[in-house]
Amino acid sequence: MAVGLKPPSTILPVAGIKLSAIHCGIKSDIAKTDLVLFELEKNCNLSAVFTRNRFCAAPVVVAKEHLLKNPTPRYLLVNSGNANAGTGVSGIQNAKYSCQLVAQHFATDENAVLPFSTGVIATELAVEKIKQSMPDLVGRLDEDHWLEAAEGIKTTDTVAKAISKQVEIDGKTVTISGIAKGSGMIRPDMATMLAYIATDALIKPEVLDQYLKQCIEVSFNAITVDGDTSTNDSCVLMATGQSNCEIEVDNALFSKTLTEVFQHLAQAIIRDGEGASKFVEVQVNTAATLEDAKSVAYTIAHSPLVKTALFASDPNWGRILAAIGRAEVELLEIEKISLYLGDICLIENGLPHAAYSDQQGQQEMDKSDIVIRVELGQGNVQTRIWTTDLSYDYVRINAEYRS
Amino acid sequence: MAVGLKPPSTILPVAGIKLSAIHCGIKSDIAKTDLVLFELEKNCNLSAVFTRNRFCAAPVVVAKEHLLKNPTPRYLLVNSGNANAGTGVSGIQNAKYSCQLVAQHFATDENAVLPFSTGVIATELAVEKIKQSMPDLVGRLDEDHWLEAAEGIKTTDTVAKAISKQVEIDGKTVTISGIAKGSGMIRPDMATMLAYIATDALIKPEVLDQYLKQCIEVSFNAITVDGDTSTNDSCVLMATGQSNCEIEVDNALFSKTLTEVFQHLAQAIIRDGEGASKFVEVQVNTAATLEDAKSVAYTIAHSPLVKTALFASDPNWGRILAAIGRAEVELLEIEKISLYLGDICLIENGLPHAAYSDQQGQQEMDKSDIVIRVELGQGNVQTRIWTTDLSYDYVRINAEYRS
Repeated sequence: MAVGLKPPSTILPVAGIKLSAIHCGIKSDIAKTDLVLFELEKNCNLSAVFTRNRFCAAPVVVAKEHLLKNPTPRYLLVNSGNANAGTGVSGIQNAKYSCQLVAQHFATDENAVLPFSTGVIATELAVEKIKQSMPDLVGRLDEDHWLEAAEGIKTTDTVAKAISKQVEIDGKTVTISGIAKGSGMIRPDMATMLAYIATDALIKPEVLDQYLKQCIEVSFNAITVDGDTSTNDSCVLMATGQSNCEIEVDNALFSKTLTEVFQHLAQAIIRDGEGASKFVEVQVNTAATLEDAKSVAYTIAHSPLVKTALFASDPNWGRILAAIGRAEVELLEIEKISLYLGDICLIENGLPHAAYSDQQGQQEMDKSDIVIRVELGQGNVQTRIWTTDLSYDYVRINAEYRS
Repeated sequence: MAVGLKPPSTILPVAGIKLSAIHCGIKSDIAKTDLVLFELEKNCNLSAVFTRNRFCAAPVVVAKEHLLKNPTPRYLLVNSGNANAGTGVSGIQNAKYSCQLVAQHFATDENAVLPFSTGVIATELAVEKIKQSMPDLVGRLDEDHWLEAAEGIKTTDTVAKAISKQVEIDGKTVTISGIAKGSGMIRPDMATMLAYIATDALIKPEVLDQYLKQCIEVSFNAITVDGDTSTNDSCVLMATGQSNCEIEVDNALFSKTLTEVFQHLAQAIIRDGEGASKFVEVQVNTAATLEDAKSVAYTIAHSPLVKTALFASDPNWGRILAAIGRAEVELLEIEKISLYLGDICLIENGLPHAAYSDQQGQQEMDKSDIVIRVELGQGNVQTRIWTTDLSYDYVRINAEYRS
């Protein structure tokens, strides 16, 4: 299914982080792992962002609460197969109890454990299964278990999502490894997006927060609508400091590498999008403001007509123009707008380009990776977002996935 | 296809308005009419609204220009099969030339003619065919041709849309008849919505404008996103005055009846929506502001996850909650929100309702007409909008409709 996305091969360990993934029984298929534990060494800094959806799931409520009480947690407990969302008071109790189970095992406080869940909603979390599996889970902790963890957090993902990068900074090797899961909703309403990215760089908490914010803006927040998020969405960035390479704010090389890791994972979610047959980058350039650029990009990316045309590999520029024409841009100047598919100019200064032929457009549309580029001709601000087409399979998957 | 929508039977004539519909050759199928003419008696007042899309089609540009020069036009010329959109300078020339053809025939000014087009885009309008058909078109003008006109403006509509109402006011009978066409896009991006509503009441221009504005807000603007409109959308309200019944502003009975006509036509477009298998009313009540109510209603109505659940007749309240949770409402209070399917309470004060069973939800979802009701518990403002599900057929129709 996934558009140009291969399963990850080797993921480099990050000194100071051990992982474990087992099957505890939340998923019915015993071949599928459903419980993942991260253990972080002392002095590891952590920054996290959570869903902005007001209906947030129990683990999100609890994770936020724990982070407030203890900004340097030592354990992340992730289950897949059950989102523990829409579960009311008992959902909160179950999330806390899961944390207590880990805390008891390591003789620490429950605030040192952050819970994460993804899967079906409105179903009680099987905490007894988690309890029984705790010795097994803890026993398998290992620095080399990143790929296992990437498998363990999957739900409807068809491919595990993981990546590693290394970079030399001040003569020291810094490693960054990350995993993510996303059922790749085109609009991630109720889809859970989870991402865990770790580095052995030494990064102060406030600097780490800043890197997370920067990277998320051009990755996971560039595949959602106006910050549209699910009840469970969470992204965690960890810095163990074990490389002894201190990264200050505005380290261009580190920032670039970290951004590449984030973007790979975010794009992987789109490539594995439900029913996706195309991977589409929407670029909006020469905008007056970032808001203008984003409004045009998202209006194109969410238009069901544009999306069905993409599915049909149909270079239907009229639908793209109509989307641009209704974007919330105060002073859109039609006569300055140009539209490209890849390098092919369809519209120049608001009018069909004289040299354009449908055959050219067709060639671009037949590709599995498509770039739609809009030039607004009003300024120097640009944005890039990623999306997919709207296919029969999207409808099938989401119509068949019963509540 | 159309959900609970039958073809109209009798449409009452409106004194002072004659109509004609013929096949001139814009559509290839000779069994399908594609050219419609309205002739309005002198002293008929007319109010019109057009697409807010910045890429508006040539006929919209010309119609607006003519209305500025002559606020009481005598002729409306509508062609179906070609939208005359994305056609640049020659599109404007062709729209003007079409008006000139009508004007020449009646020895009047071209500003007395308003042009309207709907159909495929980026194709030259076959004005020579219109020219050759002019004698035939004019020759068939008749007060009784409303149904023929309703057929003549159709494109991908499966059913003609028309309605008449009569009401007694001050001892006089007032007639209202209307026709509309809409390919029933869920988000009418590039769909053309055309509507022509006429009454024999006597209504001053400024009062007519007000009635049009009021009625459109709760009808055609309650089936679009934030005023999402296509390049060709147009709605015209005409008052011939021939009943000699003068209607002032705020006539409750007239307003109610006119609103019913508008809502019937707007809902007919949704019922005939592309691939629609459900007709869905989204009610949002007890909101603090109209903006809040609309934001929640449209977020639900446009969620692909809610729409695919509707297609699957799946009472997946989690998806509806997630949509509410990301609506742009500043101070959403989860603990005050209740959610109903028809009369069945799913969520009460933010939590699953104790007495709710999936069986109850299933019964509601199995219906073809579904009401989703949200109580925000914050004020006394409410809104209602209409939408459809997202089906395989929606994808098929829009993927197969090649540019």
